[in-house]
Amino acid sequence: MTTRTLITGGLVITAADETHADVLIEDGRIAALAAPGTQEWSASADRVLDATGKYVIPGGVDVHTHMELPFGGTFASDTFETGTKAAAWGGTTTIVDFAVQTKGQSLRAGLDAWYAKADGNCAIDYGFHMILSDVNDRTLKEMDLLVEEGLTSFKLFTAYPGVFFSDDGQILRAMQRASSNGGMIMMHAENGLAIDVLVEQALQRGETDPRYHGEVRKALLEAEATHRVIKLAQVAGAPVYVVHVSAQEAVAELARARDEGLPVFGETCPQYLFLSTDNLAEPDFEGAKYVCSTPLRPREHQAALWRGLRTNDLQVVSTDHCPFCFVGQKELGRGDFSKIPNGLPGVENRMDLLHQAVLDGHISRRRWIEIACATPARMFGLYGKKGTIAPGADADVVIYDPAAEQVMSAETHHMNVDYSAYEGKRVTGRVESVLSRGELVIDQREFVGRAGHGAYLARGTSQYLG
Amino acid sequence: MTTRTLITGGLVITAADETHADVLIEDGRIAALAAPGTQEWSASADRVLDATGKYVIPGGVDVHTHMELPFGGTFASDTFETGTKAAAWGGTTTIVDFAVQTKGQSLRAGLDAWYAKADGNCAIDYGFHMILSDVNDRTLKEMDLLVEEGLTSFKLFTAYPGVFFSDDGQILRAMQRASSNGGMIMMHAENGLAIDVLVEQALQRGETDPRYHGEVRKALLEAEATHRVIKLAQVAGAPVYVVHVSAQEAVAELARARDEGLPVFGETCPQYLFLSTDNLAEPDFEGAKYVCSTPLRPREHQAALWRGLRTNDLQVVSTDHCPFCFVGQKELGRGDFSKIPNGLPGVENRMDLLHQAVLDGHISRRRWIEIACATPARMFGLYGKKGTIAPGADADVVIYDPAAEQVMSAETHHMNVDYSAYEGKRVTGRVESVLSRGELVIDQREFVGRAGHGAYLARGTSQYLG
Amino acid sequence: MTTRTLITGGLVITAADETHADVLIEDGRIAALAAPGTQEWSASADRVLDATGKYVIPGGVDVHTHMELPFGGTFASDTFETGTKAAAWGGTTTIVDFAVQTKGQSLRAGLDAWYAKADGNCAIDYGFHMILSDVNDRTLKEMDLLVEEGLTSFKLFTAYPGVFFSDDGQILRAMQRASSNGGMIMMHAENGLAIDVLVEQALQRGETDPRYHGEVRKALLEAEATHRVIKLAQVAGAPVYVVHVSAQEAVAELARARDEGLPVFGETCPQYLFLSTDNLAEPDFEGAKYVCSTPLRPREHQAALWRGLRTNDLQVVSTDHCPFCFVGQKELGRGDFSKIPNGLPGVENRMDLLHQAVLDGHISRRRWIEIACATPARMFGLYGKKGTIAPGADADVVIYDPAAEQVMSAETHHMNVDYSAYEGKRVTGRVESVLSRGELVIDQREFVGRAGHGAYLARGTSQYLG
Amino acid sequence: MTTRTLITGGLVITAADETHADVLIEDGRIAALAAPGTQEWSASADRVLDATGKYVIPGGVDVHTHMELPFGGTFASDTFETGTKAAAWGGTTTIVDFAVQTKGQSLRAGLDAWYAKADGNCAIDYGFHMILSDVNDRTLKEMDLLVEEGLTSFKLFTAYPGVFFSDDGQILRAMQRASSNGGMIMMHAENGLAIDVLVEQALQRGETDPRYHGEVRKALLEAEATHRVIKLAQVAGAPVYVVHVSAQEAVAELARARDEGLPVFGETCPQYLFLSTDNLAEPDFEGAKYVCSTPLRPREHQAALWRGLRTNDLQVVSTDHCPFCFVGQKELGRGDFSKIPNGLPGVENRMDLLHQAVLDGHISRRRWIEIACATPARMFGLYGKKGTIAPGADADVVIYDPAAEQVMSAETHHMNVDYSAYEGKRVTGRVESVLSRGELVIDQREFVGRAGHGAYLARGTSQYLG
Repeated sequence: MTTRTLITGGLVITAADETHADVLIEDGRIAALAAPGTQEWSASADRVLDATGKYVIPGGVDVHTHMELPFGGTFASDTFETGTKAAAWGGTTTIVDFAVQTKGQSLRAGLDAWYAKADGNCAIDYGFHMILSDVNDRTLKEMDLLVEEGLTSFKLFTAYPGVFFSDDGQILRAMQRASSNGGMIMMHAENGLAIDVLVEQALQRGETDPRYHGEVRKALLEAEATHRVIKLAQVAGAPVYVVHVSAQEAVAELARARDEGLPVFGETCPQYLFLSTDNLAEPDFEGAKYVCSTPLRPREHQAALWRGLRTNDLQVVSTDHCPFCFVGQKELGRGDFSKIPNGLPGVENRMDLLHQAVLDGHISRRRWIEIACATPARMFGLYGKKGTIAPGADADVVIYDPAAEQVMSAETHHMNVDYSAYEGKRVTGRVESVLSRGELVIDQREFVGRAGHGAYLARGTSQYLG
Repeated sequence: MTTRTLITGGLVITAADETHADVLIEDGRIAALAAPGTQEWSASADRVLDATGKYVIPGGVDVHTHMELPFGGTFASDTFETGTKAAAWGGTTTIVDFAVQTKGQSLRAGLDAWYAKADGNCAIDYGFHMILSDVNDRTLKEMDLLVEEGLTSFKLFTAYPGVFFSDDGQILRAMQRASSNGGMIMMHAENGLAIDVLVEQALQRGETDPRYHGEVRKALLEAEATHRVIKLAQVAGAPVYVVHVSAQEAVAELARARDEGLPVFGETCPQYLFLSTDNLAEPDFEGAKYVCSTPLRPREHQAALWRGLRTNDLQVVSTDHCPFCFVGQKELGRGDFSKIPNGLPGVENRMDLLHQAVLDGHISRRRWIEIACATPARMFGLYGKKGTIAPGADADVVIYDPAAEQVMSAETHHMNVDYSAYEGKRVTGRVESVLSRGELVIDQREFVGRAGHGAYLARGTSQYLG
Repeated sequence: MTTRTLITGGLVITAADETHADVLIEDGRIAALAAPGTQEWSASADRVLDATGKYVIPGGVDVHTHMELPFGGTFASDTFETGTKAAAWGGTTTIVDFAVQTKGQSLRAGLDAWYAKADGNCAIDYGFHMILSDVNDRTLKEMDLLVEEGLTSFKLFTAYPGVFFSDDGQILRAMQRASSNGGMIMMHAENGLAIDVLVEQALQRGETDPRYHGEVRKALLEAEATHRVIKLAQVAGAPVYVVHVSAQEAVAELARARDEGLPVFGETCPQYLFLSTDNLAEPDFEGAKYVCSTPLRPREHQAALWRGLRTNDLQVVSTDHCPFCFVGQKELGRGDFSKIPNGLPGVENRMDLLHQAVLDGHISRRRWIEIACATPARMFGLYGKKGTIAPGADADVVIYDPAAEQVMSAETHHMNVDYSAYEGKRVTGRVESVLSRGELVIDQREFVGRAGHGAYLARGTSQYLG
Repeated sequence: MTTRTLITGGLVITAADETHADVLIEDGRIAALAAPGTQEWSASADRVLDATGKYVIPGGVDVHTHMELPFGGTFASDTFETGTKAAAWGGTTTIVDFAVQTKGQSLRAGLDAWYAKADGNCAIDYGFHMILSDVNDRTLKEMDLLVEEGLTSFKLFTAYPGVFFSDDGQILRAMQRASSNGGMIMMHAENGLAIDVLVEQALQRGETDPRYHGEVRKALLEAEATHRVIKLAQVAGAPVYVVHVSAQEAVAELARARDEGLPVFGETCPQYLFLSTDNLAEPDFEGAKYVCSTPLRPREHQAALWRGLRTNDLQVVSTDHCPFCFVGQKELGRGDFSKIPNGLPGVENRMDLLHQAVLDGHISRRRWIEIACATPARMFGLYGKKGTIAPGADADVVIYDPAAEQVMSAETHHMNVDYSAYEGKRVTGRVESVLSRGELVIDQREFVGRAGHGAYLARGTSQYLG
């Protein structure tokens, strides 16, 4: 038996259109859109949601999260359960998290471990990218298999020597493989070998405060690595997706590549758009809350990021959500910034912060949906199901109140972490209700979903290359 | 009484989505989209159009045509009636033509003249841009009035001294005015003063053949003027839309502006994408058929244009449709290329040529719709009504057969001109049926529309600036 | 009978070498250089100048001065006599001034008028560029004749409509002619048509203070015109020399041209390197002292100018010396900045200011000589005679004390103008003695020269193009 | 007792001047230059060399040679004796060769080994750069010592993993050290890790011919590494000198750095200017003669190299002279291009090839001397002594016949290698006589020098940074 939900009276916003339309949902999918009043569907609907004066938008797609990530003897503080619930609260209905290959082990083993962590625990749908720690003949063959079964994106690092670092030959080989099997290579682009020299020198000089994290991880070294992975991708004939771009010099490299017509893509994150090295310099070790890599940059870089988002040199905003509590976790780095677990909470804040950016004039409403829903879905092979509101798509829908005001705070957020990176920030706009495949997860700001509702998403290859 | 038309079984393609959906039309508007089979609308429909295996796309929006344009003692050979019928045959349901202010007269007088030409004669909807021949206090004030009544775009020329040419001070003033009244300045960007020197020198050297038209109107002089109008717009704080971009060096200027985040836009035309100076060099004065300004460029420029269309440095493809018969019109320039009436026919060919470009791998299907329908509509204040298929939009819909083959020819085309610029060109894809505001204009390759159906479109200001 | 002068013990600095050497002068020319003590020349010398601890440098070559220039009913306040004496005091031994063609008259008439002004009055050697006010068949032919007789450079303006302005077609024609006759086109590059609109609007708003001169003559409009004349030169196949570059955006255009290998050259002036819009904003109409065109720019532009001088995107520093007294001349513009005579005094200050730049680390000693002596001479066909110290060259030599301190002031300067643009500025370095063709003009800070010593210089074509 | 040599009647060409002058040499140094006939020096001269109709130029300075370099079990075929004699034949009077630190050993040990090879064997003066194979605390300290004693430049490699390769952290550390001790870092810039992947893949595909050497060492991978070392140098606050630039994309990176005002320098070599991948593709394994790294590029790259030399984006032409006989040495790579010893002979050909470039219009005469004599000397701390003809400089002088014709050939050359890279090439211009510190080495095309005349050159730090 089908269930029919009707959302009436809202302004439906997608990446392309803003339409006053009723949305009919059947069996977890968008069944139809109709001009208001055209169709007499209310009678047959099991449930009618009144969205008058609200936006009706696709659920957010956050393609960069790290739930339960092991890091330096501790773990990111959100589980797949707490993290996906928080995501739903923030209007995000799909995450793509990173499964990690442990050095020396198979991709399969890593992936299975992550399947196990997530299985039965997620409140919204989820997929995985794979972090490649080793590139060798065996793991390259496994890449092919994973692409076939729907894990189509692979992350490598030019940073973190001894942990995730791949050398340029390995990166090239992975890119070549992706070029043939249709996978997408995601790159953490910072020159980690150079940075580690600067880290060591800073510590030797007694520069141990969190703010030095921002100083040693230089913008030029992000730009360098960004340029390098672009050139390697060009040699391999492969596309490349650069994660968490934070430096204006890196944006310039992406723009240069795009001017040449190369299939080079960039993602930034809310923390780079709204925070800065001012936060890293907060006293009493509070700066540790803002330690992530790539690091926050001086405030002047923000203009380049916004411009990149407008000109489509940056295509995606995801969160790199990777929370560590200040107490007990961030504190591991007192006296040595290099020991601070890297990462920020954010999965719950993204849609709201970007809506605020609409109000601030940085982006248009449609661009908000494009960078937060449509393009991430398309980039990673989920489009058609996720990222839009169109007949046939999964009914992942958010009723968004553009006029409601809120103050971000650890007091009120739902992420399992003892601070908010945006504590006290006042924004306009708030999620009212959230549906995942037609089922209410948030109903007028009440959580009505459940762990286990979320399903694993086998993905196709990127739909952004056409 | 409402009429209900149902289009079933097609693949609905918009700038953002490709969806298998039925489309319901009521009272000339899109009433609803529904997943196939979801809704039992057929019963109540007055008319059901079967689009199985076909594309259902928004009608094309051609924002650059010149019907009946007076030029050097003759007139463009398509009237608003013949031209709009041909447009419909080619899947275009909206044109924006250019009303011309005669030097020394008011904008209003020019506009009234064009209203009179078009009124009651168009088979599809139409709007006007205004060509400003004089920029002075009086015409600047008129600009404000025209914007208020829905004529929101104004074209100026850096070329054609003595005719349409405005000097840089005049251009700046018009841009400043547009900046305040919301109008969009469209620029013909070629350094006409320099070109006229080269024309005179070429003729003195006895270089009278049509191919010299391409040689004297140098790519560098298009690039120069493009750069110049960008800087003037930057000084004015206004957006600018550069028409008929043909040179790779001009595309580079647009890309540079975009890298700086400036609101600078560019249009190219099918002739620059598919034809080249090889055509201008055709013997026996046949080259005259391809004389237009900006001129055709060497074949190597095409790659830059396609790249610009992919990277959104070029946003629109329109036709600059301005046909002159070879016999009796183009022939005016025998012995003096500068006397050849400038212009090509193309309004009927645009949608098909761009579909061929999809098949050739230059652009994606969605990008086809974006550059030919959605963006031109948005750029010139028609979006919502035109350029998409969404509830509430005008039901300007094309059922397009992506598999049909055709050979372009003056024998079979419907434009009132004695040659085709693409004579003999074989393409795949063909318009099957066309609706304008819900009424069939082309019904399975039979013209069933009528002159006078087409309505004048008062437009809003650009929706592309958000 | 030959006279022999020996300069001993100094450090001879040219554009290429720094050598401790004695310099022997015979018959007005450099006869020999020898390692100190190598040659026993003192005995036979008529005169020995001891330069121990001093620099021995080529006399400065200032290729941009305007003595006695008529401007808006008044005249630049230095005559050829006062101006060339001041130049000598400042270590400059050659000027190239601008003869002006009056609109409607022949080049010859203009040149004769300037010959008459200068003849018999100059204390140092001098040449002329020609300002072309009309470009037509007749003046183009005259260009050929002038090149043949040694007037090899011609200045045109994209500014000052109605006075010096040439349109782009005229500029192209002049450049084409220069391309064939070997002349060098010098361009004043500002978009004067656009600027005049902004001037008018500013005055209408009541913005009459000198600082608005800097605001309306926008950097973008200098950059635009710079780009434009570069493209016109490229079309003409001619080199181009852009005078008084002041905006960083204009430097960027020069750098871009140079990256493409184009023969494009740029000159800046001390006022742009040492002064800024802060000066234009000085109260009580004092800003008028700093009114010149191109205008002074915000301080941030200076870094780009210095970088351009280091990277050879800017090749020359000249003065654009064009003094008007504050009292009675600059005051003509009280209440209307557009009526302030444009120009600054500087011919006496250039060598010292640039030496200070050496001490400040902006340029090297050799680069000092290159941009102030060698390259200007080479650029305008004087090399071999002027701009270096080498056997056979004219013995235009300055003994320069690098350690002496001075304070610039109208109290002490020798220019015929009632203020100094650098009043109170303390610099290290001072001219001690100056020889022009072997004759002392300044002898240990005493003027011993005479009006009439200076000879007219017929010049060759540019030697900088090889 | 002093010896006095007089060179009369020639055209003395330096980087800055072209002067008809007699040159007096005393005690191995330039004593004086005098206008012809000014000085009656002939009487007192021990020796008069008549240079009438000839050029008198500074001896060439070749800052990139590899005499007796061990490579893959064999040695470069020129000893310091044969190589420096050949250099003299070719008008080069100074070489700077590369001493090699063997991995795990001290710099000192490597340097001593190279001192021993050269000592007593050189016909002309010589210095050393040091190749750093290990970067660690110990070798960094040794760098300081070497700089103090006059070895002021250090070469690192981004290529040749396992042999000379340094990772980016090591490169950064060496650059930081150079920044503090005044040394100059020279970089071989190719992404060797990526290249080695491509080499392995090519060999697996059976692509063993020499031409594949050119295909796997991709221009993009040279450009990438060039960009990378520039960014590392920028982080270190150090200058960097990129050796043997061959790809136009690498030149573009240098130009970009220069536009930003960075102290980044580039050297190219005659083989990249005159040869191409056409040579690598010569049949019968003849291509092996042209195997060097960076590799020869397609002919189209040459224009960018010449342009870079003209615009000073490339400052130096050296040879990278590293000869291996075809028979017995190059042949080691039959069946596996990766085993072909890398290197070409050229030390004897450089000055002549560059003179031919003057005749071909690529560069001016003065630029010839600048890139081949003056700048290399200045770049590596030899200026004043080497690279110019000025009082006090070492009397390293070449009398060059600009009109003599020659055909390059292994039959006639003096390098100890069984082939010429320019076999059969006809050029105009030939060395007639060569003096090293005032002593004739080549006397009218007869070798009159001796092994052991050449002295080791302790060098200062770079003089090109001012």
